[in-house]
Amino acid sequence: MAATTKATRLSIVTEKLNEPEIERIVVRAGATGYTVFDGSGKGSHGAKTRDRASVVRAFSLVKIEVIVAERAIADAIVDEVSATYFGDFSGIVYLDEVEIVRREKF
Amino acid sequence: MAATTKATRLSIVTEKLNEPEIERIVVRAGATGYTVFDGSGKGSHGAKTRDRASVVRAFSLVKIEVIVAERAIADAIVDEVSATYFGDFSGIVYLDEVEIVRREKF
Amino acid sequence: MAATTKATRLSIVTEKLNEPEIERIVVRAGATGYTVFDGSGKGSHGAKTRDRASVVRAFSLVKIEVIVAERAIADAIVDEVSATYFGDFSGIVYLDEVEIVRREKF
Repeated sequence: MAATTKATRLSIVTEKLNEPEIERIVVRAGATGYTVFDGSGKGSHGAKTRDRASVVRAFSLVKIEVIVAERAIADAIVDEVSATYFGDFSGIVYLDEVEIVRREKF
Repeated sequence: MAATTKATRLSIVTEKLNEPEIERIVVRAGATGYTVFDGSGKGSHGAKTRDRASVVRAFSLVKIEVIVAERAIADAIVDEVSATYFGDFSGIVYLDEVEIVRREKF
Repeated sequence: MAATTKATRLSIVTEKLNEPEIERIVVRAGATGYTVFDGSGKGSHGAKTRDRASVVRAFSLVKIEVIVAERAIADAIVDEVSATYFGDFSGIVYLDEVEIVRREKF
């Protein structure tokens, strides 16, 4: 098996207009890099209602992926996103564990 | 550590022409939102043969990601995709577990 | 619950110019298919320094995702990427486990 090390992948899916601010937060927290993918979102992303039968709207979004060897950096980004947007963040944030192949890059 | 809750991420990678039908299935199953990314697929995606040395074809595809707090919703989508396409679904469907930051959004 | 089987997802994020070589490696290793997403990378991806305050550069990249039922195929790809680029690979490689819905496709 390839020699791997556990790491945390943080995914932030949000409206494209939030991209510059999120990027600043990510870099400031100490992540060594991140990747951005353009996509589109539909449904009730960003709304709290489940009554979305009549309002399926589409909008541009980005997914920002950050992989960090130290979970603490991911947590710092999450905290800063929460503090910056005061709960009004239009997007979703989630984490999962991955195995990275070259530990020295993160 | 950031307060998180376990959730299921369902990923459906399929030809772009299937996107509207998949979206209908996702919304009907009760997912509160989903995201779509354009990509391209190559190799023998969709074919059952492993003899692909001479036929590496490229085609447009989409990846539809759905994150649900209840695994049952992901399962309902999988079942409905299977029922709709009768085993002729050209694409791949897989699930993994993620930690979401704001439980109330899903 | 939907009947699923464990599989390995290999993600290779690298500069777009590396795409054809990576694709050759993936197919040669026996993967039955893969998907490619265009994105952009920023930060110090590919550099070993953490002193990136003044050099946040952006560049085009691709994410190549390969899902294999046999972990050995993912490992073979990782080994071949390492052997091909001799440690000078500009990108990141990581693995995680997913549950695939139709085992016979991989």
